[in-house]
Amino acid sequence: MPLPLPADPGFRQRVHDSFARQGVMHTLGATLEVADAGRVVIVMPHKAELAQQHGFVHAGIVATALDSACGYAAFSLMPADAAVLTIEFKVNLLAPARGPWFRFEGLVVKAGRTISVAEGKAWQHEAGGAESLCATMTATIMTVQGRGITH
Amino acid sequence: MPLPLPADPGFRQRVHDSFARQGVMHTLGATLEVADAGRVVIVMPHKAELAQQHGFVHAGIVATALDSACGYAAFSLMPADAAVLTIEFKVNLLAPARGPWFRFEGLVVKAGRTISVAEGKAWQHEAGGAESLCATMTATIMTVQGRGITH
Amino acid sequence: MPLPLPADPGFRQRVHDSFARQGVMHTLGATLEVADAGRVVIVMPHKAELAQQHGFVHAGIVATALDSACGYAAFSLMPADAAVLTIEFKVNLLAPARGPWFRFEGLVVKAGRTISVAEGKAWQHEAGGAESLCATMTATIMTVQGRGITH
Amino acid sequence: MPLPLPADPGFRQRVHDSFARQGVMHTLGATLEVADAGRVVIVMPHKAELAQQHGFVHAGIVATALDSACGYAAFSLMPADAAVLTIEFKVNLLAPARGPWFRFEGLVVKAGRTISVAEGKAWQHEAGGAESLCATMTATIMTVQGRGITH
Repeated sequence: MPLPLPADPGFRQRVHDSFARQGVMHTLGATLEVADAGRVVIVMPHKAELAQQHGFVHAGIVATALDSACGYAAFSLMPADAAVLTIEFKVNLLAPARGPWFRFEGLVVKAGRTISVAEGKAWQHEAGGAESLCATMTATIMTVQGRGITH
Repeated sequence: MPLPLPADPGFRQRVHDSFARQGVMHTLGATLEVADAGRVVIVMPHKAELAQQHGFVHAGIVATALDSACGYAAFSLMPADAAVLTIEFKVNLLAPARGPWFRFEGLVVKAGRTISVAEGKAWQHEAGGAESLCATMTATIMTVQGRGITH
Repeated sequence: MPLPLPADPGFRQRVHDSFARQGVMHTLGATLEVADAGRVVIVMPHKAELAQQHGFVHAGIVATALDSACGYAAFSLMPADAAVLTIEFKVNLLAPARGPWFRFEGLVVKAGRTISVAEGKAWQHEAGGAESLCATMTATIMTVQGRGITH
Repeated sequence: MPLPLPADPGFRQRVHDSFARQGVMHTLGATLEVADAGRVVIVMPHKAELAQQHGFVHAGIVATALDSACGYAAFSLMPADAAVLTIEFKVNLLAPARGPWFRFEGLVVKAGRTISVAEGKAWQHEAGGAESLCATMTATIMTVQGRGITH
């Protein structure tokens, strides 16, 4: 099932602009690495201020980065006058989020007129460079139009 | 299906101690309000550093607080030598997280020897005092013993 | 958050008619017991033809009945010209589905114009009459209008 | 993250035997097509007895076949004396399940000692032979040992 072409040729700028407005991404130290049509990659370091009681990054913070990756992957295929809204997501935590670096990838599985579905994967990069999967997400995302918000 | 009594009479202190070690709760400005047997309440204000592009608290941050509420609700019923591990969670976002105050409640639905299930509800308190539900969570939580971690 | 009144005063008949058209409910031996505004109850016996390898009712069959309960709970609040569509659901299996009788309850948590969320609970009735929770569901449901289908 | 080798060299027979004991698979008309290490494929035709009110296969029946595919994919990697138990699953419905043929694939993402995670995909084959994705699942599965059940 191939994805549709982006409805808006200026989609990359639109994704970058919206990402820059997410105050929480600054708090996480997260940066937008890739903004392709239907695919977004975010990277982030481990930080003690984001940790749970064992020193790993909190599952909810992993979910925060994955949700932004999934949401912007869906947003990239939406019309220029649309806003993006996450309806729900589900996360499986596969391994403790040790870091020291994380890569979050969101990929659109279905791009619907109203409802899109994206899948996210969180990878951690250990010191030596090895990469391993530490979490997965499925997110259901809504295209919102006509409410006067466009990001 | 009544919940079992807490396996450890010192459960309140154990929950408070573990919560205090979660660096991310300080970043969120979240405080532990209730630590009962099988039920935990966390409160948190809206903060711009936690917002998404429309100024609402990011869905992943709502999930972070809900996951801690659910995880500690399950932890309160575990043996004193157990650690708590979230396996997966699912969140439905029902309304934009405007705040200015949030209350997150985690309630154990099933307390198993290995696997527990908790349900979370996020409420927002508007200026006038009205309270409304803005998100729900279901979390699957594991009791981990014999790995040398106890929180 | 109180639910809205049903948009269609004939909602009970509409739910009953649609339920009767679900061939799979006959296969399950399921019957519609309650069709209130925002709340639906379905009952079903244990049947060997619905069992998994240990003789318990298969988790997917439990999900089938829960999804119908949740979907019709949401459908009861929709306009008369709307069709109901499940976008996604999540099920936690809390205990083996032994039966011999099951009760599935779907309850609307949020009734939106486009998206509704319902929570389902599956209870089993043991021989002596005791009732225990064996599964929970959260379902996201869409109101579909203008596509020429109304059930 | 490569999967471990199957713990039991007789895993194929074990999966086939357990599948044959699932009465519900006969009711669905489902057959086991592939039983590899960490990957299982099930096929099934559309049947009116499995339909919802619009004539499509009910979402819960799609979930039933996906859950068996995911569960057996995990089971294939377990020790010979283990039983398999689904803890929870989440399904996204991407398109109406028209058929006339369906293929359900379960693939293990993480094979843990106690907890495994598998992802399922449901494809439908239209008359001309074209194949399209109609649903996805994420399932959390438990390895149960020492309770006297081995399938």
